[in-house]
Amino acid sequence: MRRIYPHRHLLGIEGLSRTEIVALLDAAESLFDVSRRSVRKVPTLRGKTVVNLFYEPSTRTRTSFELAGKRLSADVINISVSTSSAVKGESLLDTVQNLQAMQPDVLVIRHAASGAPHHVAAHTRAAVVNAGDGTHEHPTQALLDAFTIRRAKGRLEGLEVAICGDIVHSRVARSNAHLLTTMGARVRFAGPRTLLPIAGESLGATVYDRIEPALEGADVVMMLRVQRERLSGSFLPSTREYSRTFGLNPARLALAKPDAIVMHPGPMNRGVEIDPRVADGAQSVILDQVEAGVAVRMAVLWILAAEANEFSATGEPRPAP
Amino acid sequence: MRRIYPHRHLLGIEGLSRTEIVALLDAAESLFDVSRRSVRKVPTLRGKTVVNLFYEPSTRTRTSFELAGKRLSADVINISVSTSSAVKGESLLDTVQNLQAMQPDVLVIRHAASGAPHHVAAHTRAAVVNAGDGTHEHPTQALLDAFTIRRAKGRLEGLEVAICGDIVHSRVARSNAHLLTTMGARVRFAGPRTLLPIAGESLGATVYDRIEPALEGADVVMMLRVQRERLSGSFLPSTREYSRTFGLNPARLALAKPDAIVMHPGPMNRGVEIDPRVADGAQSVILDQVEAGVAVRMAVLWILAAEANEFSATGEPRPAP
Amino acid sequence: MRRIYPHRHLLGIEGLSRTEIVALLDAAESLFDVSRRSVRKVPTLRGKTVVNLFYEPSTRTRTSFELAGKRLSADVINISVSTSSAVKGESLLDTVQNLQAMQPDVLVIRHAASGAPHHVAAHTRAAVVNAGDGTHEHPTQALLDAFTIRRAKGRLEGLEVAICGDIVHSRVARSNAHLLTTMGARVRFAGPRTLLPIAGESLGATVYDRIEPALEGADVVMMLRVQRERLSGSFLPSTREYSRTFGLNPARLALAKPDAIVMHPGPMNRGVEIDPRVADGAQSVILDQVEAGVAVRMAVLWILAAEANEFSATGEPRPAP
Repeated sequence: MRRIYPHRHLLGIEGLSRTEIVALLDAAESLFDVSRRSVRKVPTLRGKTVVNLFYEPSTRTRTSFELAGKRLSADVINISVSTSSAVKGESLLDTVQNLQAMQPDVLVIRHAASGAPHHVAAHTRAAVVNAGDGTHEHPTQALLDAFTIRRAKGRLEGLEVAICGDIVHSRVARSNAHLLTTMGARVRFAGPRTLLPIAGESLGATVYDRIEPALEGADVVMMLRVQRERLSGSFLPSTREYSRTFGLNPARLALAKPDAIVMHPGPMNRGVEIDPRVADGAQSVILDQVEAGVAVRMAVLWILAAEANEFSATGEPRPAP
Repeated sequence: MRRIYPHRHLLGIEGLSRTEIVALLDAAESLFDVSRRSVRKVPTLRGKTVVNLFYEPSTRTRTSFELAGKRLSADVINISVSTSSAVKGESLLDTVQNLQAMQPDVLVIRHAASGAPHHVAAHTRAAVVNAGDGTHEHPTQALLDAFTIRRAKGRLEGLEVAICGDIVHSRVARSNAHLLTTMGARVRFAGPRTLLPIAGESLGATVYDRIEPALEGADVVMMLRVQRERLSGSFLPSTREYSRTFGLNPARLALAKPDAIVMHPGPMNRGVEIDPRVADGAQSVILDQVEAGVAVRMAVLWILAAEANEFSATGEPRPAP
Repeated sequence: MRRIYPHRHLLGIEGLSRTEIVALLDAAESLFDVSRRSVRKVPTLRGKTVVNLFYEPSTRTRTSFELAGKRLSADVINISVSTSSAVKGESLLDTVQNLQAMQPDVLVIRHAASGAPHHVAAHTRAAVVNAGDGTHEHPTQALLDAFTIRRAKGRLEGLEVAICGDIVHSRVARSNAHLLTTMGARVRFAGPRTLLPIAGESLGATVYDRIEPALEGADVVMMLRVQRERLSGSFLPSTREYSRTFGLNPARLALAKPDAIVMHPGPMNRGVEIDPRVADGAQSVILDQVEAGVAVRMAVLWILAAEANEFSATGEPRPAP
């Protein structure tokens, strides 16, 4: 028995080894049947407390963590900014130290400031999961994306993955680039020039300012959500222009491999970055991503909160006490 | 063993048969003691997930469904618009498909758009319960009203039921009219002309533009909440005028049968549509309605979520696995 | 076996006897290990329903009650104003009567109006816990403060306790003054003249309009949160002026006994009423207060909700059924 995931927290994908990523994905695989409800519920985290501390609203991510916690029988406490003492002006660190004094086992945090979960992790005994911090990382999204790709393609290594849209502001793009390059996939970024990373910050990806070359021969096409409020600036395309030049429609998708899969982290702007015919088409695995999210988050909570924090070398979780 | 309630969803009362309505009411009856806490809790839905997806705020309905779910040992997830990704502009259908991918067993939905739950039901594997859609239906309210009437009067058939107020905008009035006429009661609608249904859309009810004739000899008087924002238009009465002409006070209540019961779906505008002496008087069953709400919602969740979806012909729920 | 805490509710500290306060603190002591997670969870309140009805936002208090309830295995329902039918204008009493009809066991209420919980208690069968009402009382805060002091000092009797800040608007100051004087401690109030109680309303405390004499020889220094919106009026100090004249810094703290402890109910305005070097210093027990909060609230919920409502004369809770 050795600790395959030897960290107290999950703050980002950057810096994780291939072995650690595979351990997380394998743990998610072992929980997939529970997450899909063929088994109703497991008692693994009974009596453990998971706090969802969300400084940005998110139906899907909060609900996914909440379901993951409850299917492991944990007590889940939701705290959102709108009902928190943030209105009284307390600092993030004071809020977290107060939560800490209530002895949570896992603190899931989403925050608009890049690096907030790392700051929190340095001041709490709880395990911290980054559920999205500013434009920095969103590690469980990258894990669920990798889980989905691995189930669809059987592997990650050697795949060509095109990630298209507002790359520079996207924590999803960053976490995916780290994970995919670590796992031996090749990443291509495509987007309008003003939304691409500057030279030297492309995280190992090949960068294109047009979508077509990025799609050619791709195994995976991952479309990012367009933040409408980021478009229509003087040097930025309008929504209509964006759709015309960077939207994924059936014609463009035909440039990728015939068995390419289409992904989107949601929520989608149908008709902007993705054509409904593609979003709902046979190549789309967008809802598989959501389904994988519960399994991946169960695995992360399990690994971080379990008494012994140990998984066997086979990737099989230890039986619950 | 046969399926007495053979539907996957509960989207409205319209179209339900008398047998089906009685099955639901009998199931609620069998759960009434649990809902009233003489039995603390039953394990029937352990491991099942109920999602409350509320696009309109409602303390009482959301809390009632949440309590009903928890007393059946289900995991309950609350999602309200204010904390949902609706702020990011995702469509209802995308939100629901994403929730679906997280494998809920029952999706309870309240939405300002009439027909929203039907739209949702067509695109999900979860059982859908309509918790109020626009001006269309509110079936669990009609069921809890029927449950309350049946306990007070011993029957529904042959009763005279006066429903008074803003009929045309009321999903409560619509669902009650469907249920009561199906069960053999006679319904009377009363309200200001501008708030009455147009000819041919009275759902089998007799329509009055004054409250007094509707009250005469009634067994049941059901007052509807006045939406203050709907009054005071150029052709509409002021709040004070409304109270004077359509408010239920002791003098008006005396027009009904001496043993008539008074109902209100809440929240009440005391002093507008209902006089506090009537609301808190001996004939009021308003709090019984709230109490019945938990039993009825437990029955609906049980029937829709239970593994076998079967109730015996006696109306007795099967023992939990 | 006799009932050591013979009340149905916990509405305030005023009027509680020394025996009753000790019973509550001893019960909290017996639960402290569970609250600190050396024991994960106890089944004591399984099947019981605790409703948190919060008309004012509060991360820490709501979360503390929610955790306390869940560690006792109760079902916890959160209702906050922002999602409640308060937006529809229903009265507090109607809301509570409706909740009552859903048969909660304990109703935890926070409200901006002094006396609101007492009003509620008079109209419900549930046990009511005041979680802060206007400028009146906050009894669980006083109990957790006493619990913290007793653990740090071994006793309450004979201690000199300085409470500093906006005394006149502080429910924390009021509840603490009641509890501490009942337990034989001596209380000193210090604050700007405009924020001190008028003559004859000092609740047995000695009143100072400067902080230094209040600190001299104190065993406990309790700083209150400054409501920034209450400062900067024409007769009130600015934030900077407040910090200069009433803020607790290391120099001022040196006036108290060398082993004095520093307390704050939170959330803190660092740099206003308390210097970060003091807040995070060796004498600070501020996070111990938060930790104690869960134990105290578990004790209160247990005592009020337990079937028999009885604690043995030794202060040992009865084994759960």
